Amino acid sequence: MRALLIENALVAGMRSADDLHPRGAVWAEDGVIRALGSEARAAAAASAARGEAVERVDAEGLWLFPGFVQTHVHLCQTLLRNGPDDLPLLPWLKTHVWPGEAAHDEETLFLSARLGLAELAAGGTTAILDMGTVRHTDAVFRAAEAAGLRVTSGNALMDDAAMNPPELFAETSEALEEGERLFARWHGASNGRLRFAWCPRFAVSCTDRILEEAASRAKAQGVLVHTHASENLDEVALVRERSGRANIEHLREVGIGGRGTVLAHVIHTSEEERRLLAADGTAVAHCPSSNLKLASGICPVPDYLARGIRVTLGADGAPCNDRLDAFSEMRHAALLQKIAAGPGALTAWQVVRMATAEGAEALGLGGVCGTIEAGKRADLVLLDPTAGFALPTSWRDDPYGPLVFAFDRGNVVETRVDGEVVFHRERRGARALAPRAAEIEDAARRLRERRSGNGLRHGGAS
Amino acid sequence: MRALLIENALVAGMRSADDLHPRGAVWAEDGVIRALGSEARAAAAASAARGEAVERVDAEGLWLFPGFVQTHVHLCQTLLRNGPDDLPLLPWLKTHVWPGEAAHDEETLFLSARLGLAELAAGGTTAILDMGTVRHTDAVFRAAEAAGLRVTSGNALMDDAAMNPPELFAETSEALEEGERLFARWHGASNGRLRFAWCPRFAVSCTDRILEEAASRAKAQGVLVHTHASENLDEVALVRERSGRANIEHLREVGIGGRGTVLAHVIHTSEEERRLLAADGTAVAHCPSSNLKLASGICPVPDYLARGIRVTLGADGAPCNDRLDAFSEMRHAALLQKIAAGPGALTAWQVVRMATAEGAEALGLGGVCGTIEAGKRADLVLLDPTAGFALPTSWRDDPYGPLVFAFDRGNVVETRVDGEVVFHRERRGARALAPRAAEIEDAARRLRERRSGNGLRHGGAS
Repeated sequence: MRALLIENALVAGMRSADDLHPRGAVWAEDGVIRALGSEARAAAAASAARGEAVERVDAEGLWLFPGFVQTHVHLCQTLLRNGPDDLPLLPWLKTHVWPGEAAHDEETLFLSARLGLAELAAGGTTAILDMGTVRHTDAVFRAAEAAGLRVTSGNALMDDAAMNPPELFAETSEALEEGERLFARWHGASNGRLRFAWCPRFAVSCTDRILEEAASRAKAQGVLVHTHASENLDEVALVRERSGRANIEHLREVGIGGRGTVLAHVIHTSEEERRLLAADGTAVAHCPSSNLKLASGICPVPDYLARGIRVTLGADGAPCNDRLDAFSEMRHAALLQKIAAGPGALTAWQVVRMATAEGAEALGLGGVCGTIEAGKRADLVLLDPTAGFALPTSWRDDPYGPLVFAFDRGNVVETRVDGEVVFHRERRGARALAPRAAEIEDAARRLRERRSGNGLRHGGAS
Repeated sequence: MRALLIENALVAGMRSADDLHPRGAVWAEDGVIRALGSEARAAAAASAARGEAVERVDAEGLWLFPGFVQTHVHLCQTLLRNGPDDLPLLPWLKTHVWPGEAAHDEETLFLSARLGLAELAAGGTTAILDMGTVRHTDAVFRAAEAAGLRVTSGNALMDDAAMNPPELFAETSEALEEGERLFARWHGASNGRLRFAWCPRFAVSCTDRILEEAASRAKAQGVLVHTHASENLDEVALVRERSGRANIEHLREVGIGGRGTVLAHVIHTSEEERRLLAADGTAVAHCPSSNLKLASGICPVPDYLARGIRVTLGADGAPCNDRLDAFSEMRHAALLQKIAAGPGALTAWQVVRMATAEGAEALGLGGVCGTIEAGKRADLVLLDPTAGFALPTSWRDDPYGPLVFAFDRGNVVETRVDGEVVFHRERRGARALAPRAAEIEDAARRLRERRSGNGLRHGGAS
């Protein structure tokens, strides 16, 4: 048995905003969380008393969160990072991304996925929903197998000869056969870490037949459907031109929607489409950096949440970001709604939920990860609030605001999936020029005490 | 003589978009750049031949840029980081920032400034325009003297008893005397690195008399005026209520405007106000993270640039950001305009100019820093494109897009002011999980070659 005790961290379980445990502890056996708090310490003591080997992590001063879940990534595009900056979706796909994906062989695709997975792990992301390219998707799974992250992926379905470049096209039955082969080879591999999903690229690239087949096979196999929808106004117009319907209505018509479906972006939707999404439990993968870089628009997240639509987060591919960093996406998601919908329209707590528990639910992994609780896998990120320049954090009692606005991946100390380390950084020594952490928090506390004498009694501008 | 040769870097001089020198060299004597390229190498060789000590930096594989210039910062607020997240400007000032500033003593303010300056240096920023709080401004200058950055600051003028909290108020003549004292004590100190500026907080906090005095004294002394303007609609309404005029017109009426004036934010402006700004050379300090976090709005940067208004960048204070990071500001500035004004409305090159040469011009430091050229000070940032996850960069010939969208402060290797190191990071060893840099760029090159066979001949969606 692999036994792991992480103790003395501020444990943010993410089940509710007050699921916060200063000097908390987590006990995991073979990568599964079995106990928390004093029970965790007792289990570790009992195990040690039986002479078993226990890995102990003293996380004094650190914060422990569920690993981040990104519900829309393209690992195949990591090597296409830093392409053209100033194009909207369709010209960007045609001139950079599609020719680039078509140029992959097994070796370059494996490297692209390795690089993306290393970046994700270094940024505290433990689980992703990925979209492969048309060919060589085994390379993505092989890289995921080696990297240790929780990865759901599949070959991109692009079977409409009129709409796709000839180099990045697979005829309907060839594409479906490739999907079946990947499902048989990889779904459930590596202790369930690797899973297959049906990935029609978007309605514009696909025949109705392949959309219907993907939806019905996914249902029968119990796997996800992962596609893009309503990212861009030209795309929405193309779908209407081809199908005569609004995009979300068209997808629903061919069977795509409901729990087990993840739609990336979903920016440009009608009242009726939003009603459909709320009614059937379809999840939205919000990708704010990508939506800005491709000038797509701002996803109406607070409206979706108010309707009960599940909204999650993803970095999308490297060339429209140009990062695969959950911190960047959390920050953008939170900041954008302040100008789109008002200063309190989307709180830091809600954003961290989107990046953890909501993401896990969207991927059908609600029983597996996304929160820290007994029975779930030990998919965890350990953060050092004293790394980088996130201090002081003592003006408030919760860690969510600092995590979203002040932290970056420089604060990640360690990332674990199934209890295994997939990223680790040695904690840096003191920086000569910067004040020490204790000195900073102490000064902030003195300010706070003195401020309480001032605070609310002054008049002034209103 | 202190002699410095930095060689073999990609030198981005920032005078024009093609001011790029692969394997370039920079030669500095006593902190002043004296030669570039082969002349720099020849000067170093001659100096060495004379038996002089030369500091040599082999920057093979690194990128050398002018240090970033931030034209709006509040070092006194660094210790107020991670306050309330969801408030607009005026309630946020009244409940957190003003009481927090009022609670400072010399010691906490010195620490706040040290922390902010360490963060700025670690993120490649070499020069700032700062706004102090009402009292203890010597502490900011002392911290700047020690940290080695190029800092212009002054006491915040808040002399309207009706509009300011009693704890954060100084009567007109007391505030002006304090400014004069700081001017005499600090302006031009540390080889000119430290400078005084007149800093009326904003029109709402100030009597007309102090605005007029600040403007006329600044002109007489040849120092900057640094204030906030038109950040928030409630503020704009308050100014109109008090003065009967639009904010920029009111400022002009009391003498504030023209070269030597830096206005932070400037989001909500009329056609007539924009015409005034363009005509008189007033500089705008755009602070995109702050404008999002306080729900202020999106500054119309492309419109300002089209009119010839100088636009520069700043992080503002830590509690509305919650960082002091030029990379975050460059990325937000570039991304926001894509949804506000179109995908190509503000290029990465323009944004890097705002963060370097335009910032220096706004601060009256156009002859001192902001570009890499002979006669200017060696205020420089050395960046490692292989640190973090910014690779590959080889899809394009310029470094501006990667710098703005993919880099973060993890890419900063070294920051120098007047040729002296103010931040240095040991280059990290190979990361076990990530592919090596050479492997990544090599694979990207292969993709690019194969792609050139595909590229533009396919049809597909348009």
